[in-house]
Amino acid sequence: MSAADEGVRGGRAATTRDVLYGAAAALFVERGYEDTTMADIAERAGTSRRTAFNHFPSKGDIPMLWTRRMADVAVEVIAQSAGDPAPERIRAYFGLISRLVEAEPELTRQMMLGWTAATGPIRYESQLLADLAPLLREGQERGQVDPAIDVAEAARTLSDVYMGVVFRWVRDPGALGSFQDVAAGGIDLVLSAIRS
Amino acid sequence: MSAADEGVRGGRAATTRDVLYGAAAALFVERGYEDTTMADIAERAGTSRRTAFNHFPSKGDIPMLWTRRMADVAVEVIAQSAGDPAPERIRAYFGLISRLVEAEPELTRQMMLGWTAATGPIRYESQLLADLAPLLREGQERGQVDPAIDVAEAARTLSDVYMGVVFRWVRDPGALGSFQDVAAGGIDLVLSAIRS
Repeated sequence: MSAADEGVRGGRAATTRDVLYGAAAALFVERGYEDTTMADIAERAGTSRRTAFNHFPSKGDIPMLWTRRMADVAVEVIAQSAGDPAPERIRAYFGLISRLVEAEPELTRQMMLGWTAATGPIRYESQLLADLAPLLREGQERGQVDPAIDVAEAARTLSDVYMGVVFRWVRDPGALGSFQDVAAGGIDLVLSAIRS
Repeated sequence: MSAADEGVRGGRAATTRDVLYGAAAALFVERGYEDTTMADIAERAGTSRRTAFNHFPSKGDIPMLWTRRMADVAVEVIAQSAGDPAPERIRAYFGLISRLVEAEPELTRQMMLGWTAATGPIRYESQLLADLAPLLREGQERGQVDPAIDVAEAARTLSDVYMGVVFRWVRDPGALGSFQDVAAGGIDLVLSAIRS
């Protein structure tokens, strides 16, 4: 898949940002996150370095966009099942991200290494919280999620469990079997605590 | 508190390892993990560099020992409440670690930065798993933990939720209020899913 193809989502034309992102993703897989420079990414994308830096002031912004893109795909798909109970939609949301993660193990590994390389997981809050809180709130309104649950706490807990599984899988992909199954197991455990 | 005092635990005499650990902990708080070298640690402890490297081949081994020491204190204390239900003992175990963490915020911050500095959370599995699995298994034997729960999965989930709270607190200590309360909230949510 070329950088331009990678950039095209949902039928819209690839923007410069898409092309840069696609070039970065391809290079991370080929030579690793650490060994890819912003200059390499600009060259592969056919843009100037200045353009690359305008879109991604830091190389660490690229793994953030990767996370956001996956979550956006998952949000878009679960929007089509708005009538389903919120816990099932949360389950589907994580299931979709898991499939995207598992489909590209080396990309995931490099993006996660990049995400944590600069300052560890300490610098950034998970991108998933913003998606989870409204789903949980909706579930409470519809009587599907325990009204006594603190929505922010439940969102953090789901996100932390998921990130823990991702970190473990990136470290040792073969240790625990199917990523999708392990991730679903942890998420289901938390969901069983929040259902009403 | 001197490095030697810091090293004494449970009344036993401070070993060279204790003194080195205490010197490292004091230096991390004073000047930060990144700006402390193994040579600084040896000098503060009054040992040779060779001795320091014999005990800690990598500076990153020191945060590992910090985690293990806290967990050991917690294990020792909950051993005195062996008759209590396993979920309560797990709650107490995390509560004790939380109190130790919250008592020394800057030490925690520096140790966590050190823990993740080299390769992110990807390199090491949590030190907590080894303590949690036997407690969960015991709870199943005594009918306090749902027998259908996968013990390894529940241990991973508890550990991941706790580490998520630690990372978040280190990043922004004031954002969520009391560390102990936030940590207990996440742990209680998971415990409510595993109780029989």
